[in-house]
Amino acid sequence: MKIDLIISADDIKEEKVKGKSVVVIDMLRATSVITTAIYNGCTGIIPVLTVDKAFEIANEDRNKHILGGERKALKIDGFDCSNSPLEYKRSIVENKTLVMTTSNGTRAINGSIAAKNILIGALINAKFVANKLIELNNDIVIVNSGTDGQFSMDDFICSGYIIECISKKNKDIELMDIAKTANYVYRENKDIISFIQNASHYKRIKELNLNKDLEYCCRKDILDVVPEYRDGIIAVYKNKSNEKAV
Amino acid sequence: MKIDLIISADDIKEEKVKGKSVVVIDMLRATSVITTAIYNGCTGIIPVLTVDKAFEIANEDRNKHILGGERKALKIDGFDCSNSPLEYKRSIVENKTLVMTTSNGTRAINGSIAAKNILIGALINAKFVANKLIELNNDIVIVNSGTDGQFSMDDFICSGYIIECISKKNKDIELMDIAKTANYVYRENKDIISFIQNASHYKRIKELNLNKDLEYCCRKDILDVVPEYRDGIIAVYKNKSNEKAV
Repeated sequence: MKIDLIISADDIKEEKVKGKSVVVIDMLRATSVITTAIYNGCTGIIPVLTVDKAFEIANEDRNKHILGGERKALKIDGFDCSNSPLEYKRSIVENKTLVMTTSNGTRAINGSIAAKNILIGALINAKFVANKLIELNNDIVIVNSGTDGQFSMDDFICSGYIIECISKKNKDIELMDIAKTANYVYRENKDIISFIQNASHYKRIKELNLNKDLEYCCRKDILDVVPEYRDGIIAVYKNKSNEKAV
Repeated sequence: MKIDLIISADDIKEEKVKGKSVVVIDMLRATSVITTAIYNGCTGIIPVLTVDKAFEIANEDRNKHILGGERKALKIDGFDCSNSPLEYKRSIVENKTLVMTTSNGTRAINGSIAAKNILIGALINAKFVANKLIELNNDIVIVNSGTDGQFSMDDFICSGYIIECISKKNKDIELMDIAKTANYVYRENKDIISFIQNASHYKRIKELNLNKDLEYCCRKDILDVVPEYRDGIIAVYKNKSNEKAV
């Protein structure tokens, strides 16, 4: 089982993800939002690239949908929720479909459609994603969403932790150099916040006074759920029917 | 002065390097060869993509040219030298033009032609490259050649050391997250060999019993020379005529 890593949504190449198990990571904050919403009973999340598209879908049935996401880390006018995972409580999201648009995470998911599976990972569900990847038993590509096409230290160390979780349970893995380096960075910085304090993305979050989001997003393995993107929608991972049949 | 980093020859995007000062790194071993040859009096190095092209140029005047390079880290049939920097002695290269083809370094140089300057860096000339970059006073992009389109731990830590040299002399720099991470990796691993012992590229070099090359390539700042690629040829850095006129 090989593990590779792509450093930003702009760096995804189809041939690298094709047929693999992909995990998309945007831990500050899109994939932490997705994981939280799904854990709290959101029935599905539709990731879209534009605000207009988000309104178009949500307006088909405003009672059934909620609108969430960000532009430049801020709430979008007319949306129900921002990109803070703390807003996605059970009382808000249960039995609703979330239409979501974020700068980086949505692009990373859309860029990965040639993969066999697209799981959604963050620190808050890292161990459970790792277990699912071991179960799927494919080569793995961890796709870091990054920030505006740039490498992001937060997604990188989060990847390093997922690799750590996999390598503890499965010794038969081959890490590409970039995956080794992510794992190295995590091993040297198990207190993740202290490492990402230097990230440019972190500074933006501090400026916006989102410390509580940050603390939440840096907690490891608190939500036992693995969201999966399939056919345009993110929902709880379910085995494919043809896999069940085997 | 911003410092960015590109992780492999396959990941170069023209808009990222355009107008910038680029340093191309392929420390194991192409840019260590180039630096050594130029230091030892080689008048110019012509990097070419194919073996056929290398023969075509060298055969124009076989007394004036030497042929060097590798495929899969091995010497090419009919070439004078392999990709071992230890072969590029003064007695071999002085007053000669080297026609060189390597798997990754040549592609990285060719991919960077939109840059304002293209310097050639390795550990053996890192401090002198750093000083030149400070003098040029442009935004910097460190282009890691990588290995077959993949991130390479050796080029990454070498970049981290060049960033360290720049940041010691110039406090007015802004590091992108990827540059910060390279610098972090260097700071935690000043004994570079111990870090790159885990690199896949390193394993290949050990298999081929190239330990002496490796030791040589990991020595810091031993050659006070900055090669520059300009108009198809690599030579000692010289100020451009229009820069002199200012």
